[in-house]
Amino acid sequence: MVMRRVAIVGVGMTEFGEHWEMGFRELVAQAGLRAIEDAKLAGVKIDALYGGTMAAGRLIGQEHITALIADYMGLNPIPATRVEAACASGGVALRQGYMAVASGMHDIVVVGGAEKMTDVPVSDAAVALGGAGDQEWELFMGATFPALYALMARRHMYEYGTKEEELAQVAVKNHYNASKNKYAQFKSPVSLETVMGSKVIADPLKLFDCSPISDGAAAVVLAPMEMARQFTDTPVEIIASAQASDTLALSSRKSLTELRATKVAAKKAFELAHITPGDVDVCEVHDCFTIAEIMAIEDIGFFPKGKGGKATMDGETALNSTISINTSGGLKGCGHPVGATGVKQAVEITWQLRGEAGDRQVKNAEIGMTHNVGGSGATCVVHIMRRAD
Amino acid sequence: MVMRRVAIVGVGMTEFGEHWEMGFRELVAQAGLRAIEDAKLAGVKIDALYGGTMAAGRLIGQEHITALIADYMGLNPIPATRVEAACASGGVALRQGYMAVASGMHDIVVVGGAEKMTDVPVSDAAVALGGAGDQEWELFMGATFPALYALMARRHMYEYGTKEEELAQVAVKNHYNASKNKYAQFKSPVSLETVMGSKVIADPLKLFDCSPISDGAAAVVLAPMEMARQFTDTPVEIIASAQASDTLALSSRKSLTELRATKVAAKKAFELAHITPGDVDVCEVHDCFTIAEIMAIEDIGFFPKGKGGKATMDGETALNSTISINTSGGLKGCGHPVGATGVKQAVEITWQLRGEAGDRQVKNAEIGMTHNVGGSGATCVVHIMRRAD
Repeated sequence: MVMRRVAIVGVGMTEFGEHWEMGFRELVAQAGLRAIEDAKLAGVKIDALYGGTMAAGRLIGQEHITALIADYMGLNPIPATRVEAACASGGVALRQGYMAVASGMHDIVVVGGAEKMTDVPVSDAAVALGGAGDQEWELFMGATFPALYALMARRHMYEYGTKEEELAQVAVKNHYNASKNKYAQFKSPVSLETVMGSKVIADPLKLFDCSPISDGAAAVVLAPMEMARQFTDTPVEIIASAQASDTLALSSRKSLTELRATKVAAKKAFELAHITPGDVDVCEVHDCFTIAEIMAIEDIGFFPKGKGGKATMDGETALNSTISINTSGGLKGCGHPVGATGVKQAVEITWQLRGEAGDRQVKNAEIGMTHNVGGSGATCVVHIMRRAD
Repeated sequence: MVMRRVAIVGVGMTEFGEHWEMGFRELVAQAGLRAIEDAKLAGVKIDALYGGTMAAGRLIGQEHITALIADYMGLNPIPATRVEAACASGGVALRQGYMAVASGMHDIVVVGGAEKMTDVPVSDAAVALGGAGDQEWELFMGATFPALYALMARRHMYEYGTKEEELAQVAVKNHYNASKNKYAQFKSPVSLETVMGSKVIADPLKLFDCSPISDGAAAVVLAPMEMARQFTDTPVEIIASAQASDTLALSSRKSLTELRATKVAAKKAFELAHITPGDVDVCEVHDCFTIAEIMAIEDIGFFPKGKGGKATMDGETALNSTISINTSGGLKGCGHPVGATGVKQAVEITWQLRGEAGDRQVKNAEIGMTHNVGGSGATCVVHIMRRAD
């Protein structure tokens, strides 16, 4: 029994931002149709749909959301399945779609991710997002997500001497990359002074250390590798998919300065792909807060523990440097419509491996990676992609 | 590439009912530990967890719920994935678990389903459940689920002459079966007069035509068939898994008297299993309302369209008759903790095929089936199981 090879044969996304003129359905339809068009799927039977969204129940009063999308896109009666893993919902949906194709159960699978967050006040969105942490032990006690990540940042600073300027540099880099991405929520570069001078949200995290509230959707079309060239001249193969879990509450963890789920999932993914971190050319990591990017690049293995801040400050994660991190602008600069993020990461890596990333293209990118985290690290899902020549 | 055969090697559930003394975590842990104990899994590595729950975000303020369960049950760092398809969340979770084992990606997979519905007022639960329908076109207009199914009942009565007494007989039968099930929410038989005389909820549906608001959880342990006898002497093989979708809004459908998703999923499942409806000995169908059972036994193919009511009245769906339907008591008598229902159906069928169903045992049951519906039919997922000799 050998699983089939799986390729991404089409991608699409909406602009991320505050789409007050569009509802959830319109966002998903726009991203989905762009992916279907990109894969030249006209007239081809789509076999199944997977959707990642975190909190449509609380944000727009709608559960059963992937069935709704199948309905709205005219895809009935295909199987339509929603998966949810907080901010990792998109990445976990991609993994389910990958499994469906790899297993032979389905051939052509569309995976979408979306969130419509601006239909409610920001305070309501913050409470809904709090549902990604441990409701009884964190949210109920008043901890919001900036507060939880601030605890991690403070401890990282204490243990490794990480500086607030190094956190700020993550934002500077990612906003710069976002300025070259027409789909990004924020299109202007920001200076280190701007980040450092921004309002404190949860000390040491300032406004520009935090990803925004966003609307948006993204979609990819998957096919078995042996069928991929029917749809595209530039298939991108998914060579590894790995997922891991950790405690929801920070208080139950042995360390505040690493995400164990990232370490477990990344290690497994490298084993499956038969590569090492040094082989990766471009990686989208989950930078919901600047400290999250620093922990991610350490936990994945791009840099030793405690050296992520310095590496960032030294420019080693900038576009076309040692390892190009978050070329899309990341959650920080491109925006973070929660359920969409994990799928958008795959869209960006696909563009990079096809050589279609324009002004933010990583030269000769052959191997890319996505790293999507749920909550404060209770879920992590990692995918590794390779340009299929 | 051939998918692996998959068996259910352990099952467990909580009593369904109003568990004011237990939270979501305790319910899931109780069901999960019973399933793990049933499979004699002590010391065996569990590879992945799938969880089905509909509305934990709105009912208990907690998303990311399957990661929470992995945490609470000490299963970290295994992949833990929540799927949601309204009232079909449990069945769709079972399908994802099945796929994970069949594909070879994982060996030992635990699938759980749960809902904790009594922590909020019934009116809030009703609104949360409304999120299973089309929020913009149904719930916003004031339609609750009893109202939507009442429309289907009224039309079924108009087209096929189905009688209110026939609807009521579904409740009488299912409460009778429930009276023989120690896990059931309602343990007393009811008379036709009681059902017919109960308060009208949404004409023609009365109180006893409606399934209740419930707390509860259920779990099954899956393994590849070739490993199954390490864990049990009585493995139950899943010989078909099929899922289909339909429009969320009733107003978009061609017919109000059938669920297209049921027809598509059941047809596909019978093809995969190489059997016909007449081969099924025992079936758990999704009787969220009495009319839903009548439509289900017609749409699956046990009875011709329009004859489900008469067949029920004639006793053809009673225990050890033509086809034993809802031996557990169904959603109607056993209770309907939304996300748990689809998994509970698999638990009941497993007990039946093992010959462990006590006073409600179907004689010589060899082939069983589960039919789980999301919302008013926008999702349907069907599984067929066979006793492995």
